[in-house]
Amino acid sequence: MKIPKPTIKRLALYYRCLNRYREEGVNFVSSKDIAERLNLKPSQVRKDLSYFGEFGKRGLGYNVVKLVDELARIIGVNKVWNVAIIGAGNLGTALANYPGLLKHKFKVVALFDNDREKVGKKIAGIPVFHVGDLIRLTQELNIEICVIAVPELAAQRVAEIAEEAGVKGIVNFSPVKLRTSIPVEDVDITLSFETLAYNILKANPEMLKLIEEQ
Amino acid sequence: MKIPKPTIKRLALYYRCLNRYREEGVNFVSSKDIAERLNLKPSQVRKDLSYFGEFGKRGLGYNVVKLVDELARIIGVNKVWNVAIIGAGNLGTALANYPGLLKHKFKVVALFDNDREKVGKKIAGIPVFHVGDLIRLTQELNIEICVIAVPELAAQRVAEIAEEAGVKGIVNFSPVKLRTSIPVEDVDITLSFETLAYNILKANPEMLKLIEEQ
Repeated sequence: MKIPKPTIKRLALYYRCLNRYREEGVNFVSSKDIAERLNLKPSQVRKDLSYFGEFGKRGLGYNVVKLVDELARIIGVNKVWNVAIIGAGNLGTALANYPGLLKHKFKVVALFDNDREKVGKKIAGIPVFHVGDLIRLTQELNIEICVIAVPELAAQRVAEIAEEAGVKGIVNFSPVKLRTSIPVEDVDITLSFETLAYNILKANPEMLKLIEEQ
Repeated sequence: MKIPKPTIKRLALYYRCLNRYREEGVNFVSSKDIAERLNLKPSQVRKDLSYFGEFGKRGLGYNVVKLVDELARIIGVNKVWNVAIIGAGNLGTALANYPGLLKHKFKVVALFDNDREKVGKKIAGIPVFHVGDLIRLTQELNIEICVIAVPELAAQRVAEIAEEAGVKGIVNFSPVKLRTSIPVEDVDITLSFETLAYNILKANPEMLKLIEEQ
């Protein structure tokens, strides 16, 4: 069965939302409760969750603990994923320092760079290796996910090395559309800026008028 | 009219996709063409664009140049937005160095930090000011968007200062749910990791089995 991409993106949101309900000690929630917290329609929530089987009971709602476990299993975060960051520049360093990743079961086990000055040092307690050792260390450290945080021109080459090394998937921060046969998730920060711009204009219709008069 | 959030997010994708068609010299595209490039259903594309009026002609498709201009106007990227980054650490530095922002009409005009060591220096050619000057400089530099790239504990306080300064919207990289009355767009990088994890498991069903046996 083909699950629509937006549904997959929302699963992670449901997982986060349900986890919060669990922390709050809530036992059952309705699709309406979930929808309200996430600013979605209840029918959307029911439809999304129905792709993965029937978790809800009419009148009672969803069993929070059961649904959290089920979502963790579906998303694949009932295990810890070993992550390597390629590129120990500002972005790679920011990611290595980001506590949210491990909290969500993504453990950065290594950084890689081609700058010999950086190799052998540690960033946020994580060792920096030479990118030439990626293939060897992918096996030794059981690296499953690579984060591409290198300059645009190096991105495709690094992706090919990662794939050859046996990495299972890539989180790509470069603006390059990577050609690989393993799953890639592109992180495009400018999309967030554009969504914000739209929401600002909606909240400030007088700005729209000024722009059009420019 | 209330436009669904996922539609708004997709508008930026349509804009990018259509821009590429324009660069390629394509004059007309169908909803099917757009849908294929973005891995969506053609019916979804038609529905999303219909919220903003009828741009397509039956049999001929969408006029690329007209649709790009229309989308730019709707999203609000037919003007350059002045952006300030609060927090000149690794993340703030990475963002200041990111050429994609200006390419998409978001111009970083200032960085702010509370570290006196950093104030007065430049990062990627952009001056670093003390966060205490945010209110004054928001007026002087016409700052419209603030990026919050400060540690979690400082995020809410910084958001309040930005709002008081008259900033129109916030791109928030902290994991804090900000309380403001101006629009906020949260950037949650772990969602990308979770989507990737799901896609890896789908591509490697044997992994799922191993996880369940753990």
